[in-house]
Amino acid sequence: MKKICIIVASRANFSRIKQVALILRDSPGVQLQLIVGGSALLYQYGNVAADIEKDFEISARASFIISGDSPSEMAKSTGLAIIELTTIFEQLSPDVVLTIADRYETLATAVASSYMNIPLAHTQGGEITGSIDESVRHAITKLAHIHFPSTELSKSRLIRMGENPKSIFLSGCPSIDLAKQALKTFNPDVNKLLDYGGSGFSLDWNQDFIVVLQHPVTTQYHSVDQSVQETITAIKDLSMQTIWLWPNVDAGSDLISKRLRELKASNDNHIRFFRNFKPIDFLHVLLKSRCIVGNSSVGIRECSYLGVPCVNIGDRQSFRERSANVIDVKSDSSDIKNAVIKQITRDRYPISSLYGDGNASRFIAETLIHCNPTIQKSFHD
Amino acid sequence: MKKICIIVASRANFSRIKQVALILRDSPGVQLQLIVGGSALLYQYGNVAADIEKDFEISARASFIISGDSPSEMAKSTGLAIIELTTIFEQLSPDVVLTIADRYETLATAVASSYMNIPLAHTQGGEITGSIDESVRHAITKLAHIHFPSTELSKSRLIRMGENPKSIFLSGCPSIDLAKQALKTFNPDVNKLLDYGGSGFSLDWNQDFIVVLQHPVTTQYHSVDQSVQETITAIKDLSMQTIWLWPNVDAGSDLISKRLRELKASNDNHIRFFRNFKPIDFLHVLLKSRCIVGNSSVGIRECSYLGVPCVNIGDRQSFRERSANVIDVKSDSSDIKNAVIKQITRDRYPISSLYGDGNASRFIAETLIHCNPTIQKSFHD
Amino acid sequence: MKKICIIVASRANFSRIKQVALILRDSPGVQLQLIVGGSALLYQYGNVAADIEKDFEISARASFIISGDSPSEMAKSTGLAIIELTTIFEQLSPDVVLTIADRYETLATAVASSYMNIPLAHTQGGEITGSIDESVRHAITKLAHIHFPSTELSKSRLIRMGENPKSIFLSGCPSIDLAKQALKTFNPDVNKLLDYGGSGFSLDWNQDFIVVLQHPVTTQYHSVDQSVQETITAIKDLSMQTIWLWPNVDAGSDLISKRLRELKASNDNHIRFFRNFKPIDFLHVLLKSRCIVGNSSVGIRECSYLGVPCVNIGDRQSFRERSANVIDVKSDSSDIKNAVIKQITRDRYPISSLYGDGNASRFIAETLIHCNPTIQKSFHD
Amino acid sequence: MKKICIIVASRANFSRIKQVALILRDSPGVQLQLIVGGSALLYQYGNVAADIEKDFEISARASFIISGDSPSEMAKSTGLAIIELTTIFEQLSPDVVLTIADRYETLATAVASSYMNIPLAHTQGGEITGSIDESVRHAITKLAHIHFPSTELSKSRLIRMGENPKSIFLSGCPSIDLAKQALKTFNPDVNKLLDYGGSGFSLDWNQDFIVVLQHPVTTQYHSVDQSVQETITAIKDLSMQTIWLWPNVDAGSDLISKRLRELKASNDNHIRFFRNFKPIDFLHVLLKSRCIVGNSSVGIRECSYLGVPCVNIGDRQSFRERSANVIDVKSDSSDIKNAVIKQITRDRYPISSLYGDGNASRFIAETLIHCNPTIQKSFHD
Repeated sequence: MKKICIIVASRANFSRIKQVALILRDSPGVQLQLIVGGSALLYQYGNVAADIEKDFEISARASFIISGDSPSEMAKSTGLAIIELTTIFEQLSPDVVLTIADRYETLATAVASSYMNIPLAHTQGGEITGSIDESVRHAITKLAHIHFPSTELSKSRLIRMGENPKSIFLSGCPSIDLAKQALKTFNPDVNKLLDYGGSGFSLDWNQDFIVVLQHPVTTQYHSVDQSVQETITAIKDLSMQTIWLWPNVDAGSDLISKRLRELKASNDNHIRFFRNFKPIDFLHVLLKSRCIVGNSSVGIRECSYLGVPCVNIGDRQSFRERSANVIDVKSDSSDIKNAVIKQITRDRYPISSLYGDGNASRFIAETLIHCNPTIQKSFHD
Repeated sequence: MKKICIIVASRANFSRIKQVALILRDSPGVQLQLIVGGSALLYQYGNVAADIEKDFEISARASFIISGDSPSEMAKSTGLAIIELTTIFEQLSPDVVLTIADRYETLATAVASSYMNIPLAHTQGGEITGSIDESVRHAITKLAHIHFPSTELSKSRLIRMGENPKSIFLSGCPSIDLAKQALKTFNPDVNKLLDYGGSGFSLDWNQDFIVVLQHPVTTQYHSVDQSVQETITAIKDLSMQTIWLWPNVDAGSDLISKRLRELKASNDNHIRFFRNFKPIDFLHVLLKSRCIVGNSSVGIRECSYLGVPCVNIGDRQSFRERSANVIDVKSDSSDIKNAVIKQITRDRYPISSLYGDGNASRFIAETLIHCNPTIQKSFHD
Repeated sequence: MKKICIIVASRANFSRIKQVALILRDSPGVQLQLIVGGSALLYQYGNVAADIEKDFEISARASFIISGDSPSEMAKSTGLAIIELTTIFEQLSPDVVLTIADRYETLATAVASSYMNIPLAHTQGGEITGSIDESVRHAITKLAHIHFPSTELSKSRLIRMGENPKSIFLSGCPSIDLAKQALKTFNPDVNKLLDYGGSGFSLDWNQDFIVVLQHPVTTQYHSVDQSVQETITAIKDLSMQTIWLWPNVDAGSDLISKRLRELKASNDNHIRFFRNFKPIDFLHVLLKSRCIVGNSSVGIRECSYLGVPCVNIGDRQSFRERSANVIDVKSDSSDIKNAVIKQITRDRYPISSLYGDGNASRFIAETLIHCNPTIQKSFHD
Repeated sequence: MKKICIIVASRANFSRIKQVALILRDSPGVQLQLIVGGSALLYQYGNVAADIEKDFEISARASFIISGDSPSEMAKSTGLAIIELTTIFEQLSPDVVLTIADRYETLATAVASSYMNIPLAHTQGGEITGSIDESVRHAITKLAHIHFPSTELSKSRLIRMGENPKSIFLSGCPSIDLAKQALKTFNPDVNKLLDYGGSGFSLDWNQDFIVVLQHPVTTQYHSVDQSVQETITAIKDLSMQTIWLWPNVDAGSDLISKRLRELKASNDNHIRFFRNFKPIDFLHVLLKSRCIVGNSSVGIRECSYLGVPCVNIGDRQSFRERSANVIDVKSDSSDIKNAVIKQITRDRYPISSLYGDGNASRFIAETLIHCNPTIQKSFHD
C-alpha cells in the first residue's frame, strides 16, 4: 500500500484538493491519509472538518493556530505546526506528502516533510502574487520534490528556479475541475444559501447580488484597516445586495473581522454575512452573482473558468496571471465602486482555460501513485 | 540607531560572521543585536557562547535543539526555533536580520523574520551542495530581501531564481577575510592545541598530522553509520597523527559521536579528539596540518584560500564550486586512504580567490547599514 | 531594585490584581514587571491589554492561546505558555513572580517560575470549587513559595496540605478592595454602559436588569451545550432586561459563544451583549443590576461584599465559601428562573467581609517587597 | 477493551513499572499503551527504548528534551512535553494514564491527562524529598485521580492533602517487586558487567567495589559543581574499585557529566563508567557491591529491601523515609569518605519492607483494570 498524505488547513485548501482526495480514496493499492489542521478545524472559519468527514476519514487533526492578529502569531503558528506535523508524520509514516498552494502555514508541511526525508509534492508552484504568500510559495518550491504547476508560465519559472524538469508535471489547477463540474450542474433557481444561515440583511436570491471576499495583505499589515474601510465604503455606496465572507486566518484578519462585525451591527446596509460554503455551493453562488469583489485568488482562478466578473483590489494578487474577467483596482473606494458598476452591467465572460481544462485531479492522483522521486534535491543548472 | 541583528547558532556560523559583527559593534549609529542559539549554547558542541562573550554582549539566548538523532528532531527543533526567535524578535524589534549559510535551523530565522516583516539578509546564497542544506539554502533565498553571495556563479543563480538584481550584493565570503588574516599571522612554531585540552592520543605538534571533520548527510540518514566507518577504517589504516573534531548537531550526529567515542575508548590509534577551536586558531591548525579530510565546507571554502589540501568525501559538498586544493572521493575507505596519501606528500596549493579576496566583512557591514529594502518581494521575471 | 513580576492573562486576573500593581508601580526600590498574555491580548476577549496600558508599561507580551474549543487545546496552550514564559523570564530575570487564582494557564506561570528557581507567590489558594480550576489551584499551591489566601478556612487548608505556616499570609482577596471602592463611588444615575457599545437589545439603564455570565465547566465538557441552553431558556422566559457577557477562553467556550451568537441573531429577546468592562465599571453595573446569574466567581466573591444577589448555577463554584447573597441551583431552566425571581424581588444583601475587608492589596504588595522565601520547598509535617 | 496508558520517560521509570506493564500486557480485556519519551529515547542516557522493545510494542515516542543544562531548559522541555503528549493522547485516546514518581517532566503527563479529562493514576505520591521533585510530586498528586502510595505514612499525607481516601490504594512500591525477584535470582559468580562495556578502569568483578550515582539538586543549581567535586574527591581518596553511573537529565547534569568526563580522561583512578543497566542487572550489581554512594532514591528504596548499605549525600533525599541501611552525610568529601568506610566494612543489612513486600505490581495492575474514577476532583475536607 502506498501511503499518500494530504494536509488540509483551510477551506480553500479543501476545495482545491477534494477531487484528488476522492480519486486517491478509491484507488486500489493506495492508503489516503488526510490530516486536517489549522483553520479547517475552527468553528469561526466554517468548521471545514465537519464537511470533510462526510466523505473522508480524518487520519489526524493538528491544532496549531495561535490566537492573535499580528505577524508574530503567524510565525509562531507555523513553528507550532512544524512540531505537530512532525509528530503526526511519525505516527502515519506517509510515502509522499501533498501540500497545496501558499498559505503561510503550508510552509510547515514542507519543512516537516522534507526534513524527515519524506517526498513532498506541491501544487500551484511558480505563480507570482503579493503578500507573504509570494515568498512562502517559492520557498516551498525549493523544498519540494514533485511540482504540479497550473500554467505553462508557472512551469517555466520552476525550471528557471533550478527545479529538475523531470520533477515538474504541468497539471492545471484541480480547482478548475470543480469549476467545470459547477458549471455543468448549476441551476440558478436553486437557492444555495438556504443551508447556511448567515446573518445580517435578508437577501433575495432572485435579485442581483455581488460577493465580497477580502483578506489582509500581511506585508502591508499597517494599512489593513484602511484597505478594508475603502472596500466597505464602496460596498455601502453601491447599496446593492451583497454576500460577504469572513476572511482567512492571517495577520490582520481579526481587524477585518472587527470592522465586519461593526458593519453588521450597524444594520444600515444590504449585506448578508457567511462563514463558509461547501466548495461546489460556493461556485454556484458565484455563478449566480453579478461579480466577485476583493482580493481572493478565487476571482482570478476559478472565476476565469466560470467567467464570473471580478473586481480585484490592491496588491495581494499582483502579477498573478489572469484572464479577461478581471478588472484590477487600487484600494480606493471610488475606484472599487466604479469597477463594480462596470462589471455588474455585463454578462459572464467566456470560459478561459488559463488555469486548466478540468482534468487536473486525475492527473495529479495518478502521478502521485506512480512517482518515485529521489530525496536529495540538487539545483538543476 | 539602526538595529542590526545577527543570529549565531553554531561554531561555523560564528567564524564566518565574527568580522562583520566586530565592524557593526564599532559603527556609530548602529546597535548590534547578537542572538546566540542552538548548538552554540551547548557544552558538547564547544560552548561557542563563552567565546562570543569575550568580544560581544549577547542580546538574547535561544535554546531550541531537541535532543535526539533522527530527522524528526531536526524538524521539530526548527519549529521550536521559530517560536523562540519570534518571541525574541518581539523584544528586540530589529531593523534588519542577518542569517548565515544553510544549516537546517537557519530556516527558522528566515521564517520568523520574513513573516514578521523584518528585512532578512542572507550570506552564501546561490551555492549548490548535497544534504538538506541544499534545499534549506534556496528556501532561505526565496524568503530573503538582501543577498550576499560569495561567488559570481552563485550570484547568477540568485538572479535565475527570480531575485531582484538590485537586492544582490556580491561580497565574497567573510570567512575568507579571516583566512587572509590567519595566513598573515600564522606561526608554525606556536602550538595552537595547548589551550584546548582534547582527549585521546598525545599528539606532537611538530610532527605531521591531518585534520578530520565529518558531518552526517541528513538525506542519507540510513547510511550515516557506514560512511563514518569507512572514514574511520581509512584513518586507522593511515596510522598517522590525526586531529578529529566532533560533528555538528544534525540527524545522525549522535551516531557519529558514538562511533568516535568507541574509537577513542579503543586507544588503538593516533587520534586526538577536540570539541571546538576558536575560529582563527582552527585555521592555524589547518595551516599546520598536511591535509583536511571529511565533508566540511571548510575544506572547500577557507582551505581554497589557505591552500590546505583537502580530501572531500561523499555527497555533502556535491556541486559546490571548488578550487585546485580538493580531491573528491566516494565514501570508501581505500579511496579515502589513497587520496590522503596523495595530498600529504605535497605542499600547500597556491592561494585561490574563488570565495573572495578577504574584504567581504566590511562590504557586508556597510551594505547592511545603508540598505533599505522593500518588504514585499516579487519574483523578478 | 527588587523586580516583582505579575502575569495578567485574563480580564478577571487584571481586576483582581490592579490595585496591587498600582502600589508596586509607585513603591521606591521596586521594579514592577507586568507580563500580559493569553486572552488578555485578544480582541474577542475585550483587549484587556489596551486598558492595562493606560496605567502601566507592559514588560512583555506572551501569545499562547491555541485556537480551538476542546480540552486538548487547553492543555497545549498551557504547554506553549510554559515555553513562552520561560523565555520571557530569562529576559526579565524577576526576583519574585505573582500568579493569580486558578485559571488553567496560570499553572504555566507556576511551572516556569518554580522550575527556574524563581520564588512564586499565589493568591486565592486553599479554596474549593469545581471544573479543572479545582485541580489547578491546588497544584499551584504545591509549587508556590508564598501564599495569599483570601479566607481563614482557605488558610487552614493550605496548612493541612503541608505548606509552611510561615509562608502563608492571610490577606483577604484584593478584589474586595476594588469592591469597597466601587461601593463608595457608585452613582446609580451614571450609565456605565455608554462607553462600551455592546450589541443586541437596546437596554434602558434606568429600568431593572440582570447580568449573566456563564463559563464552561471543563470537566463536564460534553454537557456544556445543554448547560448553556438551560440558562438561555430561563433568561428568555424571564423576559427581563439582561446584560450578557461573553465567556472566558476555556474548553467549551466556543460552543457557548456560538449559542450566544445564535441568540443574538434571533433578536427575539431583551438581551444586550458585552465583551468586557473595566473592573470598576463592571462592579458598578453589578451594583445597578438586580441580580447576577451564572457561574462566575464574581457572584460569590465580589458580590458577597457588594451585597448583589446571585443565582449560582451548577458545579463550577461547588464548595466555595459563600455568604448570604447566593442561591445555588442546578443547571435546570425552571430552577434558574425561580431563583432569579426570588432574588430580583429583594434589596441588596448586607455587606459580608468573608473574602476580606478591602485592605488586601497594600498587604500583599508590602509582603512581596519584604519577603525572602527559600527556594527549596519541603512538606511541613 | 480498556486502554491503559503508561508513560516511560527515564530508566528509573522503566525499572519501577516494568512488572505492572507486563501484567497489563498479558491481561485479557486490556490494551496496554506504552509511550516512551524524554531521556528514555536518548543514546547518552542508555537508550532505554531498545530494552523496552524486547518485551513491549511501543505505541508512540515523544521527543521533548530541549538540550541545555539550566533550569530554563527543564521548564521548556516540560512545556514541549505537554504539547507532544496531548497530541499523542488524542491519537491513542487512553481510558486511564499511569505516571510514575516525580521527575520534572512527569508533571507534563499529569497536565495533559487531567486537562483532557483522562483519569490519571500516580505512584509514589505523599513522599517527601528535596530538589524540584518535592514540588512536582505534590503538584501531580493534586492533579491525579488515583493514588498508589508506597508507604503508610505517604498514604496519610495524601489524605491530609485533601485526596479522597477512596482514591488512595496503598500498594507498596513496584520497584520492591523487582528487588524481591533480584534477591531470589542473585548469583554473585555471574559477572553482570560483561554485557555493558563501560569505559575507564578495568574492574574485577570478584574484588570489592562500590557503586556511585549522583544527580544534580536542581534547587541548588549553583552549587552542583561543588557537590560533585566533593564526591569525586572522596571516591579518589578511597582508591577503591568503583562503578559510576552517569546522571539523569536535569538542570546541572551536563556539568556533572563534564566533571566525570574529565575524571575519566585523567585515568588516575579505579573507576569504571557505565551509562545504563537493565533493571534486574542493576540490582544484581548493587547486591554484589559493598555500598551505594550518592543521592539516588535507589539507595533509599530498593536498597532498603536488598539490604545494600547506602551512603546518601546532601539534600536530594531529605525527609524521605528510610530504613537502617542508610547513613546520611553532608556534601563534604571527608564525611562521605568516612561513611563509606563504615558501610563497606559490614555485611548487608536485613530486609526491610518499608517500601513494600514485593506484591505491588499485581495490585496496581488489577486496580487500574477495575477502577472507574470520577473526573471532577474535590478537596476532601
